[in-house]
Amino acid sequence: MKKEIIVYTISDSLGETSQKLLAAASAQYPDISFLNRYNFSFVTTEEELLEILKDALKDKALVVSTLVSKQLITAAKEFSERTGLLYLDLMAPFFELIQAKAGVDPIEEPGRRHQLDRAYFDKISAIEFAVKYDDGKNPQGFLDSDILLLGVSRTSKTPVSMYLANQGYRVSNLPLIPEVPLPPILEEMDPQKMIGLVCSPETLGQIRSSRLASLGLGNETSYTNVERIEQELAYAEEIFAKYGIPVIDVTAKSVEETAFLIKEKLDERN
Amino acid sequence: MKKEIIVYTISDSLGETSQKLLAAASAQYPDISFLNRYNFSFVTTEEELLEILKDALKDKALVVSTLVSKQLITAAKEFSERTGLLYLDLMAPFFELIQAKAGVDPIEEPGRRHQLDRAYFDKISAIEFAVKYDDGKNPQGFLDSDILLLGVSRTSKTPVSMYLANQGYRVSNLPLIPEVPLPPILEEMDPQKMIGLVCSPETLGQIRSSRLASLGLGNETSYTNVERIEQELAYAEEIFAKYGIPVIDVTAKSVEETAFLIKEKLDERN
Repeated sequence: MKKEIIVYTISDSLGETSQKLLAAASAQYPDISFLNRYNFSFVTTEEELLEILKDALKDKALVVSTLVSKQLITAAKEFSERTGLLYLDLMAPFFELIQAKAGVDPIEEPGRRHQLDRAYFDKISAIEFAVKYDDGKNPQGFLDSDILLLGVSRTSKTPVSMYLANQGYRVSNLPLIPEVPLPPILEEMDPQKMIGLVCSPETLGQIRSSRLASLGLGNETSYTNVERIEQELAYAEEIFAKYGIPVIDVTAKSVEETAFLIKEKLDERN
Repeated sequence: MKKEIIVYTISDSLGETSQKLLAAASAQYPDISFLNRYNFSFVTTEEELLEILKDALKDKALVVSTLVSKQLITAAKEFSERTGLLYLDLMAPFFELIQAKAGVDPIEEPGRRHQLDRAYFDKISAIEFAVKYDDGKNPQGFLDSDILLLGVSRTSKTPVSMYLANQGYRVSNLPLIPEVPLPPILEEMDPQKMIGLVCSPETLGQIRSSRLASLGLGNETSYTNVERIEQELAYAEEIFAKYGIPVIDVTAKSVEETAFLIKEKLDERN
């Protein structure tokens, strides 16, 4: 059985930073199960904080926090030094660096991460854009896109679009199907904004089979047939060559990696 | 003019954790502009790392890293102690805690955050689900949803759905419009899975006006008329009461906060 470590995360906001760090760091311990049993959000009083730390101590838990109030940071530090609680605050070292660098202290205002500012509304609008122009639904949207993704079925166009939208890019995508004519508006598109996605035929076949299975459908259709898939991919490569569209192979890549490579390609060109 | 601090982020993976921390921490310094001029991803050799640190020193930059290789962490630490570079690694303190707690060292395998495992594919599938069942497009999907969001136009149904999908929830949403009959399938829905979104009529009017403006349309339509909006909201409240649907007021809330409150409501019931 795997060793288990209970983790409490504490934040005076939502606690997303701690959870991101925890996900990244815990992947380095394949033999330990990290149980993020509690994520305490919006903790803003010392009383509340100390109650949580006492429970963590009883649970022999490890505590990761992102606190901005100096009073709370100090209280947590004193408590853990006194009791031996394993405690780590992610923000405090950053604040110390800034104090050293600029002689400025944080304003200690909790939860300022989600300011409803211009950048925030641009992101929301990018997400709505990506949903609206997913799957070639409305090719008129291509011209307003920062990025148009093209590829055959199951080359991760939708999740990659949503991931990029979440970073503020206006993304649309177009499925490539040999039997379906391309929307004429493609001729007007700036090729600098188009990216082609491909995948190995074998992997694509596997992904499509699990897709059908998850829909409760049988396995043996042309959709999962390797020859058919190769034909679709050859057609896609033809389109990419015709329009001078750079291609990214998504085989065994995560959505995050694919998105990273797309941004790199766009940067190269601008 | 605002004081500027140049920040380099360095990671042996994508660098998302550093950027999240930077966004959260820098919001605490309204009088400082943090310029994340470089985000160095996939840095895995000591040579490459030291080149970056030398540049950072020349730029008088602050460096935030998430490295998993002990060799790289040590090299960066030695370099900054020797040169006075302001440097912070976010992972190392976590690794020290785990060593203290469990006597286990990290496997030092970069970029393990994005494992293509079951949870990962579930998330991708949740994102595709949310896109497919956005905007009441296919009410059949309601029954397969973990969460069905209901609300009048511009109550942030789509971005909240996508945010929750990103955390693995299968979310659909239904716009409420007095003139459009409800899909009959609503009668079969588990009320435990439905959440109503409302917003103050004034805020909704403002949001809708900017929406129209962004679409290049005029301002004075019934869509932005406060009386009409109040009528829509009254209709929505009627539906929420009829089905016993709990309601969240999204006025001045970020998507993240709304999603947080939704998860809290679901937890209360389960």
